[in-house]
Amino acid sequence: MFSTGDLFVTTLYLLSSGPGDLAYLPPLARHALAQSDHLVAYGLYLDLLGELVANKQRHELPLGEEIERARLALNLAADGKNTALISSGDIGIYAMATLVFELLDKPEESSNNPKWQEVHIEVIAGISAIQALASRSGAPIAHDFCTISLSDLLTPWEVIEKRLHAAGAGDFVIAFYNPVSRKRQWQLEKAKQILLNYRPENTPVILGKNLTRTDEIITHTSLSNLDIKQVDMLTLVMVGNSESTRIETPQGQWVYTPRGYGQKL
Amino acid sequence: MFSTGDLFVTTLYLLSSGPGDLAYLPPLARHALAQSDHLVAYGLYLDLLGELVANKQRHELPLGEEIERARLALNLAADGKNTALISSGDIGIYAMATLVFELLDKPEESSNNPKWQEVHIEVIAGISAIQALASRSGAPIAHDFCTISLSDLLTPWEVIEKRLHAAGAGDFVIAFYNPVSRKRQWQLEKAKQILLNYRPENTPVILGKNLTRTDEIITHTSLSNLDIKQVDMLTLVMVGNSESTRIETPQGQWVYTPRGYGQKL
Repeated sequence: MFSTGDLFVTTLYLLSSGPGDLAYLPPLARHALAQSDHLVAYGLYLDLLGELVANKQRHELPLGEEIERARLALNLAADGKNTALISSGDIGIYAMATLVFELLDKPEESSNNPKWQEVHIEVIAGISAIQALASRSGAPIAHDFCTISLSDLLTPWEVIEKRLHAAGAGDFVIAFYNPVSRKRQWQLEKAKQILLNYRPENTPVILGKNLTRTDEIITHTSLSNLDIKQVDMLTLVMVGNSESTRIETPQGQWVYTPRGYGQKL
Repeated sequence: MFSTGDLFVTTLYLLSSGPGDLAYLPPLARHALAQSDHLVAYGLYLDLLGELVANKQRHELPLGEEIERARLALNLAADGKNTALISSGDIGIYAMATLVFELLDKPEESSNNPKWQEVHIEVIAGISAIQALASRSGAPIAHDFCTISLSDLLTPWEVIEKRLHAAGAGDFVIAFYNPVSRKRQWQLEKAKQILLNYRPENTPVILGKNLTRTDEIITHTSLSNLDIKQVDMLTLVMVGNSESTRIETPQGQWVYTPRGYGQKL
């Protein structure tokens, strides 16, 4: 799509490191890592990349310093250094990619950094938590689904609540990102109560923690039995739609959301 | 999660082949292909896998024979043959995985095939078209989004229309799968008209055709200018939310959906 002409001095990769297990990291991302001398990320995500990030210059900024991370990545690349800004999962989904474009769009930011415009940007998609959880539990997102972040740090709760009602009314399968944090506990309980107005108590709910990692835990429950205490910051919460079905085979429990072929079976 | 005990005779991989370019295919999927002697898929998807599927037994069933494909894959695996059922994109998203679980769940199907229960199933996630398009166009799905299939072959139009209104009211970024087909043309125009009740005419719209392939075409337009004639079966249509923003840099056009950091900038 975009040509890498003489105009661009260096590439800034906006790179997705996937759910955790490196078996999910495609060759495109590995190539981008190999091309990058400078890596900007939250430290844990770099640790998960193991050997792939050995001998690289690491710029680890803590959680909460997202804007600083995006600025630093743009500055490094504008300074002629091949750089990768890294998020776990897919960097395009509730992650860092959008912040880079937002900075480029702010006159007060980009007028101070005219060389930002010369940076060639390449976004590299990855497998997100919603897909990792879906694949570990059957086929829950096989029909229309939505994602909702329950974090009201940057989004007013009224907007989130409006989306919860819309997702309920639209009968979407729902994946909750950022369901709780140490300081935020009540939002998931509120979401559960809202959804119980729209779908049955026995609607399948799946919790996925540390997905694809050695300490992965998948928990099957139902909407009315969802216990907020089982959920932490690293858990993805998925709620089926009114047709999602739980089955049990000798291998274990699965949830699938039918596409409508049942009429033909 | 699941143990591969003596109980299971063979593995049926439900395998995602990604958006097209093999650079997006993770090692996990490559390993599963290497383990499989029998491949069941729509022919085009196998062709895209090139060398990776050389010397495999191919079972190509045409579009429309999805149930037959799922049955065949279960039968092959139950017969002791290592088998991969393959969908493009992510097999868990509007694709074949759910049909396998639906067949296992139907008493009339599974009672005729008791050995289906002995098959070990492994679902392998992949990068879906929505992520490929997002990465090629910026960061449009950085905040709450939903996917809606506009195909009313298996889902009643009333259900789809209800979801369109819900997605509009909830201000979700929307990705339309199956926007048109040779026989279905009016649904996307109707969807556009519904959404114009909820968001501005200049809402960014992105069309992605043949994503990641050599003949990829990305088109930027707006909701009111969306021309249905530009869309075909192989196009993914993405509609921004009320905050999605288009910017232009020397590299080209981008769309990002802010997460709310703007307040802090």
